[in-house]
Amino acid sequence: MEHENENETKALQEQEQVVNPWEVSSKGKIDYDKLIDKFGCQRLDQSFVDRVFRLTSRTPHIFLRRNVFFAHRDFNEILDAYERGEKFYLYTGRGPSSEALHLGHLVPFMFTKYLQEAFKVPLVIQLTDDEKCMWKNLTVEESKRLARENAKDIIACGFDLSRTFIFSDFDYVGGAFYENMVKVAKCVTYNKVVGIFGFTGEDHIGKISFPPVQAVPSFPSSFPHLFKGNDKLRCLIPCAIDQDPYFRMTRDVAPRLGYNKPALIESLFFPALQGETGKMSASDANSAIYVTDSQKEIKNKVNRYAFSGGQDSIEKHRQLGANLEVDIPFKYLSFFLEDDEELEHIRKEYGSGRMLTGEIKKKLIEVLTEIVEKHRAARAKVTDEMVDAFMAVRPLPNMFN
Amino acid sequence: MEHENENETKALQEQEQVVNPWEVSSKGKIDYDKLIDKFGCQRLDQSFVDRVFRLTSRTPHIFLRRNVFFAHRDFNEILDAYERGEKFYLYTGRGPSSEALHLGHLVPFMFTKYLQEAFKVPLVIQLTDDEKCMWKNLTVEESKRLARENAKDIIACGFDLSRTFIFSDFDYVGGAFYENMVKVAKCVTYNKVVGIFGFTGEDHIGKISFPPVQAVPSFPSSFPHLFKGNDKLRCLIPCAIDQDPYFRMTRDVAPRLGYNKPALIESLFFPALQGETGKMSASDANSAIYVTDSQKEIKNKVNRYAFSGGQDSIEKHRQLGANLEVDIPFKYLSFFLEDDEELEHIRKEYGSGRMLTGEIKKKLIEVLTEIVEKHRAARAKVTDEMVDAFMAVRPLPNMFN
Repeated sequence: MEHENENETKALQEQEQVVNPWEVSSKGKIDYDKLIDKFGCQRLDQSFVDRVFRLTSRTPHIFLRRNVFFAHRDFNEILDAYERGEKFYLYTGRGPSSEALHLGHLVPFMFTKYLQEAFKVPLVIQLTDDEKCMWKNLTVEESKRLARENAKDIIACGFDLSRTFIFSDFDYVGGAFYENMVKVAKCVTYNKVVGIFGFTGEDHIGKISFPPVQAVPSFPSSFPHLFKGNDKLRCLIPCAIDQDPYFRMTRDVAPRLGYNKPALIESLFFPALQGETGKMSASDANSAIYVTDSQKEIKNKVNRYAFSGGQDSIEKHRQLGANLEVDIPFKYLSFFLEDDEELEHIRKEYGSGRMLTGEIKKKLIEVLTEIVEKHRAARAKVTDEMVDAFMAVRPLPNMFN
Repeated sequence: MEHENENETKALQEQEQVVNPWEVSSKGKIDYDKLIDKFGCQRLDQSFVDRVFRLTSRTPHIFLRRNVFFAHRDFNEILDAYERGEKFYLYTGRGPSSEALHLGHLVPFMFTKYLQEAFKVPLVIQLTDDEKCMWKNLTVEESKRLARENAKDIIACGFDLSRTFIFSDFDYVGGAFYENMVKVAKCVTYNKVVGIFGFTGEDHIGKISFPPVQAVPSFPSSFPHLFKGNDKLRCLIPCAIDQDPYFRMTRDVAPRLGYNKPALIESLFFPALQGETGKMSASDANSAIYVTDSQKEIKNKVNRYAFSGGQDSIEKHRQLGANLEVDIPFKYLSFFLEDDEELEHIRKEYGSGRMLTGEIKKKLIEVLTEIVEKHRAARAKVTDEMVDAFMAVRPLPNMFN
C-alpha cells in the first residue's frame, strides 16, 4: 500500500502544507490528521500508552502521555515481539547543521533516552554530517565539527554508554554500511525519489544519493560490531513525522533485501514561539529557545515572542478565556510540564480566563529555565573523551541486559 | 568548453554509434575521429611518442607506437611536469563483472604497467565491485569475489608491489574517499549526469550515485595513506575511451574543489573476433580470446571466428590482396606483435595477396598463445597472500624512487 502514496509531497504542496525532511510549513496549523492519511501511518492511541505502561512497569514518558508522539508504523509489532521476550534496537539521528540545539531538537532524544531505559535496548544515533554538508553547503570539516558538538548535547541527554553507539556518516560510511547503501540504491528509481522527496533535475546527485544513507541504519547488518548474526533484530525509529518519507522508502525496500521493515514512532513538530505553523527555524534565533539561552534570554523570548491565545484586554480575557488551541505557552507546557494535574489545572484556569497570560508565561519560564539549566550543567560535563567513547566502533556486550 | 558537450551521448545514439561506459556499439566501424570531436579530447600524435621515448630513455610501448592509445587530455602537461622533475600518479581500474578476463581487458593493464616502469610512479587500481553489483545485478558477495579473482589477473600483469595499491570499492569507500565522493556529488546535478551518461528516470539511484565513486581516485586526497600532504600531485588515467565521460565530469568538477584535473591517455577498443564494431562482449565466449583459453581453443577461435579481410578464393586473393582495414588477424597482430619490421612485412605481403589468410592466422595463433600461456603461468603464481598484500591499505614509502 505504501508505495502507492508517492506523490504526497507534491499533493501536500498543492494543499497549503509542505512536510518533508527539509521543509515544514503551512498556511495555518499543521493538519496532522491529513499527514497521517497522506503518509499512510497509524494514530498512536491510548491503548498503546496503556500497553507500554504494562510492559515496562513505569509511568509512560510525558511525550507518550501527552500524544507528542502521536503516530506510528508497526509499533504494535515491536511490542508484540517484546512481550514474547524478543528485543529490538532503537535508531534515531540528527543532521548537524548548527552549533546550538533548540528544545525541539531535544524532543526525539529525550524520548529515545526514555525508550532505551524502559525497554533496556541498544541504540544507534546517526549524525548526518554528509547530508548537512550537501544541503547547507557547509565544508566537510565544518560538518564534522558540528557533528561532534551536537554529539555532546546528545550525550548530555543521559544516554547509557553501554547501550549506545553514536556515529557520523563521514566517519562510519564504508564496509557493511556501504554494502547496504548499494543494496538499497539498487531498489529505488530516480522517479521514485522524485515522488517521495520532490527532487528536481537541477538538484545535485548528492541529494539523490543520500536517502539510502539514512535508510540503512534501519538494518542490523549495517552494524556488524553490534549485531553480527542477528539480522532479524527489529528496529524502532523515534523521530519527528517529517522524517517519515525516508522510512517509507526504507520499508518499501526492506522485504526485497530480506530485511525486516523498521517500525516507527513519530512526533508532532515542536512549535515555534511565534505560533504553530511548522518547526522552529534554526535561522531565526527568536523563534526558539536554545539550550544555550540564559535565564534572562528565556524570560525575554517567552515574554516578547511566545504567541498568546489570551485576549487583548484583561476584561475580555476574564470574560472569554484564552484560546488554548493557538496558545504557545500552553503548548510548550504540554510538552514539558511533567505534572499532569498541574497542567489540567492550568488548562481550566487559563482557558476560563481566571489565569492571565503573564501568569502562564511565568510558569513556562520557570519550567524552561529548569530544563535548559539542567541540560547546560550536563553538557558541561561531557568531555571529548566521552564523545570518543560513544563514537568508538566497538561491541556492546551488555546492550540487551 | 568541456561542460558544453553534455548531450553527446544522446547525439551519438542518433548517429548510429553509441559509446558510453556501459555500451559500445556502432552499425559500421567505430568512428574514432568523431569520438574525439564529440568528447573534446585530443589526438595523441607521433610527437608524444617521440617525447616519451626521450623522457624515459626506453622504447615506447607497442600500444603507444601503434596508436592503440590514440587520444589524451593534458598528457602534455603531465610530461611538462615530469620534465621539470615533478612526479605524478597513475589511476586505472576494472569493473569485475566476470571470472575470466579477455585480451581486451588486459590492454589498459599492460600499458599501465609499462607507464609505471617507465616513469617510476605509484599506481592506484580501482575494482568497481559496487558498480557491477548494481549494473549486472550481482550479489555483493559475488561482486567482491570477482574483484579478488580479477585482482589476481591484474597482479599477473607484473605490477610492482612497492608502487601499487589495488582496492575494491566495497572495501575502501569511506573516510577521505567518501568525503571526496560527497564533494563531487555536490557539484553535479541530475540533469548533468543525464546529459553525460544518458540515465533515465527509471534508472535506480545507485547508478546516479556511482559517477563520483569512479571520479574521486583522480584526487590524491582520496588516498591519505599514500598521498597525505601532496594534494597537488597530478593524476594520469590510462583507460579505454568509453570511460571518458566519467573523467570529463571529474575534470569539470576538479577546479571547483581546488583539485587538479586528472590527465587521460585513452585507447581504442580491442575489437571482437567477429569484426570491429565495438568492444568484445563478455557474454559471447566466441567473440573474444580469454586468458583462460587453451592453445586448442585459441586456434579454433581464430580459425573459425576471426573476421578475415582476405578474398573469397585464392586466385582473387593473390590478385586483390587482403583488406587490412577490416581484417581482424592483422588488427590483433598490430596490438600484440612486438616486432615492428615483421608487422610491416605482413602488411605488405598480406595486403598484396602474397600471404594467405591461413598464414596470418597461423602467426596470430602463435602470438596469442604465447601471451596467454605467459599470463596463465604468471597468474598461477599469484597467491591469496599476494592479493592481500596489494590490497592492504598501507603507505608506499618507495613509490617515487
